Amino acid sequence: MQFASDNRAGVTPEILDAIAEEASTFGGAYAEDEASDQLEARFAEVFERDVRVFPVLTGTAANSLALACCCDPWGAVVCHSESHIAVDECGAPEFYGGGLRLVPIEGDGHQLDAAGLTRMLEAVAAERTDVHRVPLQALSVTNLSELGHAYSPDETAALCDAARAHGLATHLDGARFANAVVGTGATPADLTWRSGIDVMSFGATKNGALAAEAVIFFDASRAETFERRRKRAGQLFSKMRFVSVQLLASLAGDRWLTTARHANRQARDLADGLSGAPGVVSCSDPDGNEVFVLVEPPTAEAWKAAGAQFYGSPSGDRVMIRLVTSFATTDEHLSTFLEVAHRSPTEDKS
Amino acid sequence: MQFASDNRAGVTPEILDAIAEEASTFGGAYAEDEASDQLEARFAEVFERDVRVFPVLTGTAANSLALACCCDPWGAVVCHSESHIAVDECGAPEFYGGGLRLVPIEGDGHQLDAAGLTRMLEAVAAERTDVHRVPLQALSVTNLSELGHAYSPDETAALCDAARAHGLATHLDGARFANAVVGTGATPADLTWRSGIDVMSFGATKNGALAAEAVIFFDASRAETFERRRKRAGQLFSKMRFVSVQLLASLAGDRWLTTARHANRQARDLADGLSGAPGVVSCSDPDGNEVFVLVEPPTAEAWKAAGAQFYGSPSGDRVMIRLVTSFATTDEHLSTFLEVAHRSPTEDKS
Amino acid sequence: MQFASDNRAGVTPEILDAIAEEASTFGGAYAEDEASDQLEARFAEVFERDVRVFPVLTGTAANSLALACCCDPWGAVVCHSESHIAVDECGAPEFYGGGLRLVPIEGDGHQLDAAGLTRMLEAVAAERTDVHRVPLQALSVTNLSELGHAYSPDETAALCDAARAHGLATHLDGARFANAVVGTGATPADLTWRSGIDVMSFGATKNGALAAEAVIFFDASRAETFERRRKRAGQLFSKMRFVSVQLLASLAGDRWLTTARHANRQARDLADGLSGAPGVVSCSDPDGNEVFVLVEPPTAEAWKAAGAQFYGSPSGDRVMIRLVTSFATTDEHLSTFLEVAHRSPTEDKS
Amino acid sequence: MQFASDNRAGVTPEILDAIAEEASTFGGAYAEDEASDQLEARFAEVFERDVRVFPVLTGTAANSLALACCCDPWGAVVCHSESHIAVDECGAPEFYGGGLRLVPIEGDGHQLDAAGLTRMLEAVAAERTDVHRVPLQALSVTNLSELGHAYSPDETAALCDAARAHGLATHLDGARFANAVVGTGATPADLTWRSGIDVMSFGATKNGALAAEAVIFFDASRAETFERRRKRAGQLFSKMRFVSVQLLASLAGDRWLTTARHANRQARDLADGLSGAPGVVSCSDPDGNEVFVLVEPPTAEAWKAAGAQFYGSPSGDRVMIRLVTSFATTDEHLSTFLEVAHRSPTEDKS
Repeated sequence: MQFASDNRAGVTPEILDAIAEEASTFGGAYAEDEASDQLEARFAEVFERDVRVFPVLTGTAANSLALACCCDPWGAVVCHSESHIAVDECGAPEFYGGGLRLVPIEGDGHQLDAAGLTRMLEAVAAERTDVHRVPLQALSVTNLSELGHAYSPDETAALCDAARAHGLATHLDGARFANAVVGTGATPADLTWRSGIDVMSFGATKNGALAAEAVIFFDASRAETFERRRKRAGQLFSKMRFVSVQLLASLAGDRWLTTARHANRQARDLADGLSGAPGVVSCSDPDGNEVFVLVEPPTAEAWKAAGAQFYGSPSGDRVMIRLVTSFATTDEHLSTFLEVAHRSPTEDKS
Repeated sequence: MQFASDNRAGVTPEILDAIAEEASTFGGAYAEDEASDQLEARFAEVFERDVRVFPVLTGTAANSLALACCCDPWGAVVCHSESHIAVDECGAPEFYGGGLRLVPIEGDGHQLDAAGLTRMLEAVAAERTDVHRVPLQALSVTNLSELGHAYSPDETAALCDAARAHGLATHLDGARFANAVVGTGATPADLTWRSGIDVMSFGATKNGALAAEAVIFFDASRAETFERRRKRAGQLFSKMRFVSVQLLASLAGDRWLTTARHANRQARDLADGLSGAPGVVSCSDPDGNEVFVLVEPPTAEAWKAAGAQFYGSPSGDRVMIRLVTSFATTDEHLSTFLEVAHRSPTEDKS
Repeated sequence: MQFASDNRAGVTPEILDAIAEEASTFGGAYAEDEASDQLEARFAEVFERDVRVFPVLTGTAANSLALACCCDPWGAVVCHSESHIAVDECGAPEFYGGGLRLVPIEGDGHQLDAAGLTRMLEAVAAERTDVHRVPLQALSVTNLSELGHAYSPDETAALCDAARAHGLATHLDGARFANAVVGTGATPADLTWRSGIDVMSFGATKNGALAAEAVIFFDASRAETFERRRKRAGQLFSKMRFVSVQLLASLAGDRWLTTARHANRQARDLADGLSGAPGVVSCSDPDGNEVFVLVEPPTAEAWKAAGAQFYGSPSGDRVMIRLVTSFATTDEHLSTFLEVAHRSPTEDKS
Repeated sequence: MQFASDNRAGVTPEILDAIAEEASTFGGAYAEDEASDQLEARFAEVFERDVRVFPVLTGTAANSLALACCCDPWGAVVCHSESHIAVDECGAPEFYGGGLRLVPIEGDGHQLDAAGLTRMLEAVAAERTDVHRVPLQALSVTNLSELGHAYSPDETAALCDAARAHGLATHLDGARFANAVVGTGATPADLTWRSGIDVMSFGATKNGALAAEAVIFFDASRAETFERRRKRAGQLFSKMRFVSVQLLASLAGDRWLTTARHANRQARDLADGLSGAPGVVSCSDPDGNEVFVLVEPPTAEAWKAAGAQFYGSPSGDRVMIRLVTSFATTDEHLSTFLEVAHRSPTEDKS
């Protein structure tokens, strides 16, 4: 009953096969190999346009490298106060960005809100050229958001329009982009460059890869310094072909969407199944593969005692629990957990 | 006939099996998992003492993180002018180290020389507390050296003694440490902490792993800031257990030494086989898995034309060629290449 | 009618004399001179205890160097959202601090509030050792605050107690410290180390010096890396003795308090004189040398048209104007301005 | 008998007057004032072309800011191994430059040599686009060199041509530029942009200012990020008008050349006067205001004992002594010192 994160899952058989096949061969190093050479063409199909694609090893590196290409060391990146770059990367954006600043903003329902963003940008617009101030230079949006929301193309476009109206570059943290594509039913293109995204972090690790992320530039002019930055960050891996074959295996036959569809479906079933469970106060309507459940404290304890793994945090007198599904979440995992959840806390402790 | 680098090889079957076994499981994230938990105990056996062990994804990251723990942003690291950190990492040590400086030194036969190091350290000893100068704070030794030399325990100790006499911390870049262990016949302990090494980069990627390096601290006091540094460098990989199982699989049954022994043997056979080949001026006596061959330009061209892959650089009128073997270098690779080499250049061009 | 800032004023005659006297002499360089040697003893008298004192050239450098000694590159400094370090230094704290983060907080009446600080620190206390999070490591308080408030020793102690209870170092930005000393009637010691401050930026430039700031460490253990940091930031000025003589001249005969007393008195008279002036909605009760006046827009325009210099920013339908006095503000400046202010806007435009 | 450095001298009366005159006035802050506004026009006359001019407070900051505008964080600056940026700034170029690298080179007679530079640049030309290497992006020349040499326009042009042929930007450290102008008899234009210099550090502090340096861009395109960099380095001084009036006073009536001429003359007289003095092995032929004298150790000791101040360093069995003159070096200082020098060491010790 592993619902702590999709990064707790292993590797899909197809991706493992691709690695195994590559293992017995020699190949080029440092992303100069046949698999890496195919990445841009393959992603161009996925995104219906030319793209620059750079594989890297971790999502934190992908985000930080992308942002460093969008913001000067004396500039700032606007992001949600709960975004991964703001709370889960121990200052990596600042490190890679030479001391840039994150400017976290709030949003109703934990989502970035275009109207609020515009108000904020207008309020400081006059300061943009004031040498004493840190100029806002980029917006970072996370889709799925840290709180499970899948921004639609319209929502994304509204945010990007607001940003661009004030000269900000736009970054998408797509650690769970596949889940957002499935969740919205929109195309990858509509969720990104057609809505105004300049550069994105494309995540495969949470979607069944061993270790495979990519930075994708829709605005190629921002990619100029990328390769130097990646190298000197220790992210230009010598056996990069092993990362590239994972990405190719994931994209082949739209398998990246199949695995995401499975995870989203499991999240939906989880949310449905938890309705009416004892101690469950409310449950989010999941857009992707994350379910947020507000429970009474004894319920959280009972679930934990029964072996379920998840993150929870106090929310007033209750506990807000995050349940994350993945390609590896089976129907059996679900039924076992739902059985636990529908037992009364007292039963469980007996 | 892939002799360009050992990072062109794939993955050993045993390491691939370890990855495959892990692939179908759930596990802890961010190095909080069962495999990662075993690393320190396992490396303690290898090094015959307590150690702090931190897996990372690339050798450049391992070196840069290790050095950042040994040197202030305003300090300097003494290294060989041909060392990997000086010429092959695009300034990663400076980036991770907040702007630290590398002070490259020369050495006869391309090796660091303890007497020369001592003279240099003595010459600047008086400046150590001069606030205008960049103080020398660490020494970095590479074993195997970039030029294929395996420093013996005595050579290592002489360098570390010189460094420590002037207050410098000592780092070992062990990207090819297994080859050095086999090449010298010394124990891992003798080649490191018993000779005065404080922290090392332990490489497995060049020795048959997919992606597995580790920073090992013999001086635990230097490890204090490591975890924060690794995280904010985007090197705390979520599925780190897949790195740790590679390291464990490599160490199991001393397989890391078996693969290195194979590579060293192939290098030895290569050197032996090249003696007397047409156009070969001289050939290094390999300590590890690298052979340096001085050849006439037409010979280099002939080898290339026949499909051999290697790096070469002008050396006066001749070409200095580096041939690197690995766990994946077969006897057949060798015999094919040696056959090419013993053909005369003219023959080859017909 | 220069009320834009106290940094628009020139230099006091006494400080100018000290510079002139030094000008015709030779002296030691880089803070190794007779005047610099006296700084610690002289400041020890002012603060009634041993201190480490380092002159620097600008307030931004003083703040940034002090904070870099209190916070790791991966740590964070808590400060008011309107503090100078957050809004007026173009990311200097991040630059000097190797990418550290500022965590701005709000406070009623634009002041840091100990209870709010405690709630905030308690809320994140559990994350302090979480390697994914940026740990809070320092608190920075500004006295006078950016909004003219003079924190009392009790207020300062409450803030420092809250900070220290969670392991944070404490920094005081004392760009207008003299005005705070005069405004509270407290001793320098009570406003700093006796209330728990570890390190402060002591400003003289706004108080009649040409260019003279100092970083003063009450916690000497935090000063260890200061001299290297100052040097490599280009803040170890060769003719530093000219900075030191300014500080000595300012402290001599408590002249630093005399000039501040004058400035505070002028601010008080300004506030009193503006009561009942046409278009003045409300006026702050100044603790120091800054008066904040809420006025109707035509009033702001009329004052400007009459030649008064000040900063104003929209506050709903009104304009919030900041008037800053200095050692150089004369009674005549005041009466001229008050005469303008008491004319009706219509009069003025005729 | 102060010959340790020209930064041990005080301030010229004319510069002091300019400061005193400004002291009793109000003025704009942060380089937005009447004096600062005149800088570019005034320097345009001096350099016979349009220039961008930015006053700063120290020479180290001037150099480091200029270089950061010419070199990426992953690039390198070629400089002489004895240059101020390499040995006397505690890593400031690396700090300001986000971790850039200095590549020190040697040169016969301690001078940069265009032929040697070209050989070096050609040797690594092929590596310029190699992502693993640190690309050479700028050349920094010091005139006067650290060893007292005044590069002529031809020598400067040869160096700049070599640099530009390989795409390097060119920086001039002109801490003692006035002495070089006087020493060569060349125009400021000929010594800089007409010979290919893109940006220079113009020093006034060593030439009789209190604290006044300027970064001057001949290639305006490199100045784009300068103001942000200066601000966040704590080098945008609030009372910058006091720096600007020093620069204006120095340039007025070519006084900067008058003071430099005096200093150079004193150096010449010093060198002449030392010929034949006991224990003097040899003496440099000074181009500017620095004399390098090779003496027997007892002579160095005797001079010191007699109260002369200077820097010396071992040179084989002898001592190499640097004697620096300034605007403040009087004929009396000289005659006193020469009298000491012509006494025999034995006499002196009696």
